[in-house]
Amino acid sequence: VQSDNNGMNGNGVHHVSVRAPVSVNPAKLKSHRQRWNVRPSEMSKKTLNPIRAIVDGMKLTPNPEKPMIALSIGDPTVFGNLPTDDTVLQAMKEAIDSHKYNGYAPSVGYQKSREAVSNFYSCPEAPLEGKDVILTSGCSQAIELAISVLCNPGDNILVPCPGFSLYKTLAVSMGIQVKHYNLLPEKSWEIDLQHLESLIDDKTACLIVNNPSNPCGSVFTKDHQHKILAVASRNCIPILADEIYGDMVFPGCDFQPLAPLSSDVPILSCGGLAKRWLVPGWRMGWILIHDRNDIFGTGIREGLVKLSQRILGPCTVVQGALESILNDTPPEFYQGTISFLKSNSEICFSELSTVPGLNPVMPTGAMYIMVGIEMEHFPDFQNDVEFTERLVTEQSVFCLPATAFEYPNFFRIVVTVPEEMMIEACIRIREFCARHYRPRSQDSHELDQ
Amino acid sequence: VQSDNNGMNGNGVHHVSVRAPVSVNPAKLKSHRQRWNVRPSEMSKKTLNPIRAIVDGMKLTPNPEKPMIALSIGDPTVFGNLPTDDTVLQAMKEAIDSHKYNGYAPSVGYQKSREAVSNFYSCPEAPLEGKDVILTSGCSQAIELAISVLCNPGDNILVPCPGFSLYKTLAVSMGIQVKHYNLLPEKSWEIDLQHLESLIDDKTACLIVNNPSNPCGSVFTKDHQHKILAVASRNCIPILADEIYGDMVFPGCDFQPLAPLSSDVPILSCGGLAKRWLVPGWRMGWILIHDRNDIFGTGIREGLVKLSQRILGPCTVVQGALESILNDTPPEFYQGTISFLKSNSEICFSELSTVPGLNPVMPTGAMYIMVGIEMEHFPDFQNDVEFTERLVTEQSVFCLPATAFEYPNFFRIVVTVPEEMMIEACIRIREFCARHYRPRSQDSHELDQ
Repeated sequence: VQSDNNGMNGNGVHHVSVRAPVSVNPAKLKSHRQRWNVRPSEMSKKTLNPIRAIVDGMKLTPNPEKPMIALSIGDPTVFGNLPTDDTVLQAMKEAIDSHKYNGYAPSVGYQKSREAVSNFYSCPEAPLEGKDVILTSGCSQAIELAISVLCNPGDNILVPCPGFSLYKTLAVSMGIQVKHYNLLPEKSWEIDLQHLESLIDDKTACLIVNNPSNPCGSVFTKDHQHKILAVASRNCIPILADEIYGDMVFPGCDFQPLAPLSSDVPILSCGGLAKRWLVPGWRMGWILIHDRNDIFGTGIREGLVKLSQRILGPCTVVQGALESILNDTPPEFYQGTISFLKSNSEICFSELSTVPGLNPVMPTGAMYIMVGIEMEHFPDFQNDVEFTERLVTEQSVFCLPATAFEYPNFFRIVVTVPEEMMIEACIRIREFCARHYRPRSQDSHELDQ
Repeated sequence: VQSDNNGMNGNGVHHVSVRAPVSVNPAKLKSHRQRWNVRPSEMSKKTLNPIRAIVDGMKLTPNPEKPMIALSIGDPTVFGNLPTDDTVLQAMKEAIDSHKYNGYAPSVGYQKSREAVSNFYSCPEAPLEGKDVILTSGCSQAIELAISVLCNPGDNILVPCPGFSLYKTLAVSMGIQVKHYNLLPEKSWEIDLQHLESLIDDKTACLIVNNPSNPCGSVFTKDHQHKILAVASRNCIPILADEIYGDMVFPGCDFQPLAPLSSDVPILSCGGLAKRWLVPGWRMGWILIHDRNDIFGTGIREGLVKLSQRILGPCTVVQGALESILNDTPPEFYQGTISFLKSNSEICFSELSTVPGLNPVMPTGAMYIMVGIEMEHFPDFQNDVEFTERLVTEQSVFCLPATAFEYPNFFRIVVTVPEEMMIEACIRIREFCARHYRPRSQDSHELDQ
């Protein structure tokens, strides 16, 4: 059903009543729709998922001779090689057996569960209490609530490029404009701070910082984060810190959450169990409200509480298990995941960095590697979408074209697959590139001048 | 942060740049907000929960001599007298032990789980397949998605009065107007169909029918539902059927889902595990898409899928347990819950129907009783809010004033409390009424003429 201002049946019906003979009661006529005309809302039509749009548009027919290897799925659980810890499963079963977690929780979560999260993340520079935590249905809802409370239609938000597509999907559906700030591959994906600041105007409602990064697998230094905060502070822009990959960083590199480094900038830090605890399907996320200078004040806090009442919080069983999951999971579990991701990343990087025409960027965290394609050396393909499409057709290896992250001429590899699969995939990618690589001929070179 | 059109800092900043000396680069100035001014979004401010607003505004200080009895909470699990079935808990533990339900599910739910729901609800008159089911984070999200896909800002929806407050909370937050149609207590809360039809205009996007009803505990007859469908059909209005209390009806009365009675009207039926399986905290809900005449077409289906991608679906563990929960829960469990609710309802009704000044309406399903207050006989109180407030102060019994359901001079009793608690509560309510009841004096009677 459409409202007049995007004129469809509203006008149609109006038309009818105009034509109606005077004898007929216009009120009756007005209230009588003449035909069925049910249409999806503008908001649903504006809710676009670029990854789906691109992948659904690709012809993905693997080579029947070779088993398919999907390096595209950001779900660490699909191959069974990265199970969650037994402590995590045990905590769930205990929550069920307790019979205490079947009823409604407060829409922002049980106080006890919120405190478990605040205790887990609190630190002297950025102390947290239960009241500073909003439990959500996955980190996706955390991001949705954070954007919803900070932005009005007509505002704009600053998002990383390349970056996770959900920011844009949510913002655009709410009538919020998205401005992409560049990350610099040559500087291990640090933010182009000048470009970032040049995008800010008086409608800029929020800066989204994603660290560690999907799709880059990069981790910002303390120094770089201080510079990001300086830009936000100078321009009085609050930050949405997407830190869902927090602490998933390789040995030797240290993850620094943003909030403890902030002296004045208010921060909504979004996280959850999905990645570090390897249970993305459980939909347990949270917002940590960092507002030591009381810039958000009660308004933003109350706004988040109100928004949480729309669909209530995450599953109470997971809430009941949360305290034990956070406190009892052995450090070896986290270390095991990280060393696996690091070793797989190194295999992938060292393999692909010797492939003519490819420029992988070595990650320091998360579970992704971005690989640059020197398109001028692959004249068989128009772009990264065609490149990755043909990689499936010929080698049965699927990597996500970085066009899905608004970053053409790159593709993203997920490094959570079993080691032998990663090795085999790299061999096939090398074979594929060797077959299609063309050294730039003199004339094509001249043409470029 | 505010956008210009609801003028706050936008104007403020503009003001500054106007004042700025010409020598200064206006672009730079424009992009430089002068001070922190972070405000909650209009949408968060428009997300209002009437129950919270009213209850938070009440002075609820129980009588220290009497233990508190809360008949206000629509959560059947709080007193522990209505546990879910062991089959349900066992299904959850098996889902956890299978290690199969930790990863991401499709945003609309696992196909297997969707089919479990479609098989459970499919019938010859209204056949369902997996593709007709969208799994959601509780029935609240089911209702949110249904309203979001059917309505645009400026449209209106028709909601029952008295009725569940979430419909209005969600609609208003999306800029959708709410029109209340009357339910008739004297006709056991049937819809005033004339009033309903008189509210329809060319901006009416959806009719919400809640059966069995919260707060009324009423269940519509087949005949009445045919008349509701006739109104929708005549005016070409799709229906959102909130059937979360479906099958929770007392022996002798039968629940008839709306969809099988519809020949042409497309229906989104919303339900979930919350009430019938007594696990509201697990947040497992669903939308059943009934569109046998292809009026929704692919547009509404695709719209629902797109909207589901915003925060993804419900907890995968509950999805994994769903098939067993639906198929293996013994009939005795459902019957046990229902006969308890019926007996408690009868106790409450027979007790209160002999209390001068009160008019309880006997329910036939769900878990609520609405009780009318003859306010003219209780001059000590302005309205149902004051009445229920004082009932707490004097008798430590809390019932929700029906003003929370836009229906003054009634209050709602939740009948899920233990029997002895229900009996004690009724005794106290009788005592309270006896103390405050005033037979109408002659002159006050004349005044009324």
